[in-house]
Order: sequence, then structure tokens, then C-alpha cells
Amino acid sequence: MEFSSKIIEQAVDAFSQLPGVGKKTALRFVLHVIKQDKQKSDQLSKIIAQLKTDLKFCNRCHNISEYEVCEICSNPSRNQALVCVVQDYRDILAIENTGLYKGHYHVLGGLISPIEGITPSSLNIETLVNKLSANSVTEIILALNATMEGETTSFYIFRKIASFNIKLSAIARGIAVGDELEYTDEITLGRSIINRIPFDSLMKK
Amino acid sequence: MEFSSKIIEQAVDAFSQLPGVGKKTALRFVLHVIKQDKQKSDQLSKIIAQLKTDLKFCNRCHNISEYEVCEICSNPSRNQALVCVVQDYRDILAIENTGLYKGHYHVLGGLISPIEGITPSSLNIETLVNKLSANSVTEIILALNATMEGETTSFYIFRKIASFNIKLSAIARGIAVGDELEYTDEITLGRSIINRIPFDSLMKK
Repeated sequence: MEFSSKIIEQAVDAFSQLPGVGKKTALRFVLHVIKQDKQKSDQLSKIIAQLKTDLKFCNRCHNISEYEVCEICSNPSRNQALVCVVQDYRDILAIENTGLYKGHYHVLGGLISPIEGITPSSLNIETLVNKLSANSVTEIILALNATMEGETTSFYIFRKIASFNIKLSAIARGIAVGDELEYTDEITLGRSIINRIPFDSLMKK
Repeated sequence: MEFSSKIIEQAVDAFSQLPGVGKKTALRFVLHVIKQDKQKSDQLSKIIAQLKTDLKFCNRCHNISEYEVCEICSNPSRNQALVCVVQDYRDILAIENTGLYKGHYHVLGGLISPIEGITPSSLNIETLVNKLSANSVTEIILALNATMEGETTSFYIFRKIASFNIKLSAIARGIAVGDELEYTDEITLGRSIINRIPFDSLMKK
């Protein structure tokens, strides 16, 4: 695509660095910004700069926060003996929305994926191990995606912390609430039979 | 969605004003910006502000330009007697890419759509009529989408400029190059038979 203006070209290039945004979508964004009120585009421009200046990664759990230590890590009412390992910030949001978890988190920043060039050393696994050596963590919950990369990463962490005397669990895989057996894939269905749960424990929830 | 930080919330709101971007996509953008180099996010932030300060709408044809009069309108080698009416800037890019058009343009800024609340008065139709009164325009080409809104707008313009002694044409509708008859819808196929073109005129192109 050739643009009549250098500024439009630069703006399209800048927008198309965002994930999932190609040149055509970027141009749609650019035209939208040109047409909207100056106030709104100033707001967008300002907040983008602010994201880099005002936000940090929590130095305990790598969560995104306005503070050196995030609000979850610094909250005394949360159980720091329990650590839930997640891929990124969005998973924390999802788990927090359930309102059922009161422990701490540890954000890996990705999942092991040789194809995408993501090795264990590019993830926050070392700091997780350090946390176990130093702190009084008693249980780790692995809450990673039920994908090849998620399972690989879970297994890597399992091996890495095997020497610690810590309870390690993974979130339950099974049939999602509202799903029908008929349309569930055979691996999930098979696993959900093997990992069946005593009915009376379900009654308590 | 509830976010842990006010800044993330504001950034998600700002990004989700872009067309086709929901809260989830906006959050993906925000996380990408937080993770990328400061230099790149500064670039994005700066160029968004620049879009509103450095770009204007050409006061002759409403094209987007860095100048008061756009490069097409101010180019003496282009035929100003010929005006191609388009919906927006992207259509100019598409037509310029063909390299086959050497006239001027007139950007409407949208198409008549009662459902979306776009009336003729919110489009640049008045300035088109003024241009015809003042200038030596001899032909107008309507190059609008082959949709209900496009056809309505074309018809509206046709009625509006009927009193002027000007040749009015519309870009050809028909079977796209590379398409198969079998899969062409009946309206397009029917029209392409009615509006058939002498074979020798095709040979000249």
C-alpha cells in the first residue's frame, strides 16, 4: 500500500505493530483517529505514553502494577503460603473475577514454546524457584492453558521444583459448566472420567 | 472486566474506541504496549498526537493531506475537469494504485445510511454542488460501493446535480477479473448481461 502522506505511513506502521493488526486495520484506526475529536486522540496518545512510565512489573510476582510491589502481594489478608502460577496478567484478572482464590500469584510471562523461540530462561521461572527457597510457600497451583505449551511448561516446573517439599497441584481439567457430553472431545472426556470427583465434595460448593 | 489499575482501565477504554476493537482486544494492545520497548510505544503515542495536529482535510476535495490543498488538487498535470466521487480516503488509495485515473477527486466522507443516522447533510455533497457551479467540471464519475447505501447515495447525487450540464457516469459493475460465472450472484450476472460492452472496446485496453 502506498500512502499520500509520510505521517499516515508512519502511523500505519506504528499501529500495525499491535498484535493481530495488519496494514488495512491500522489504516482504519488512523482514519478513525483523524476524524475523531482532538480531545479523544490526545487521551489515547497520552495514556499510551503513561503505560510505560507509570506501570511496573511487581518485583515479587511480576504482575503489572502501579507500585513496586503489587496490590495482591502487599495485601496482608491474602495467603502468601499459596502461590498460583499463571501465564500473564489476563489470567490473574480471570481468576480474581471468580472471587474464589485468596492466595498470591506468580506470572511467568509466557509459556515454553520452541517454535516461537520461548525457552524456560526467557520466562520468570528462576524467580519462582528463588521464592520457594526463601519463603514459606506450602502449595503451588499451576493454572496454565490446557495446550501443548501449557502442559510442557507445567511439566518443566514440576521437574524444577521436585526437590522442594511443597504440595503441587494443577487446576482441574474437565467438562466446562454448561457443556454437553456429546460434543466434548475424547481426551477431555476420558480424563474427566479418570479424574472423577466424589459427589459429596461437589455438593459442598 | 475489572482491572487492578486505573491506568490499565483508562488505556483499555481509550483503545476500545477504535473501530472493531472490544475490551478484550484493547487489553491485548495494552499488554503489548507495556511489554514492548519504550521507544516503540513513544513512537505510537507521538504519531497519534501528530495525526491531529499535522493532517488536514483538503479544502477543495476533502482528501486527507498535510497541506491546505492536497497534492492531487494542486498537481497541474491532473485533469480538473474530471471529478471522481468516492466515499473516503481509502478509495482514493485504491484508485490511485490502479494508475489509470488522472482526474481530481471529491471525498464524501461516508454514504447515506438512515439506519446509522448518516443523512445527506452530514456528507460533503453541498461542496460538490458548489464546485460544479464554480468550476469547469465536465464529467463526474461516481465510484461508490455496490451496496444499498452506495446506490442510494449515487441516486441522491444524480438528482442533486441533474440541473447541471455535466456528463455523469458510474464505475462499471460486473464480474470481477478472475471470477467464475457459476459462483457469481444473479443480480451482478444479470446486470453484466444488460450492460454488456462491445468486444472491440475491450481489446483496446
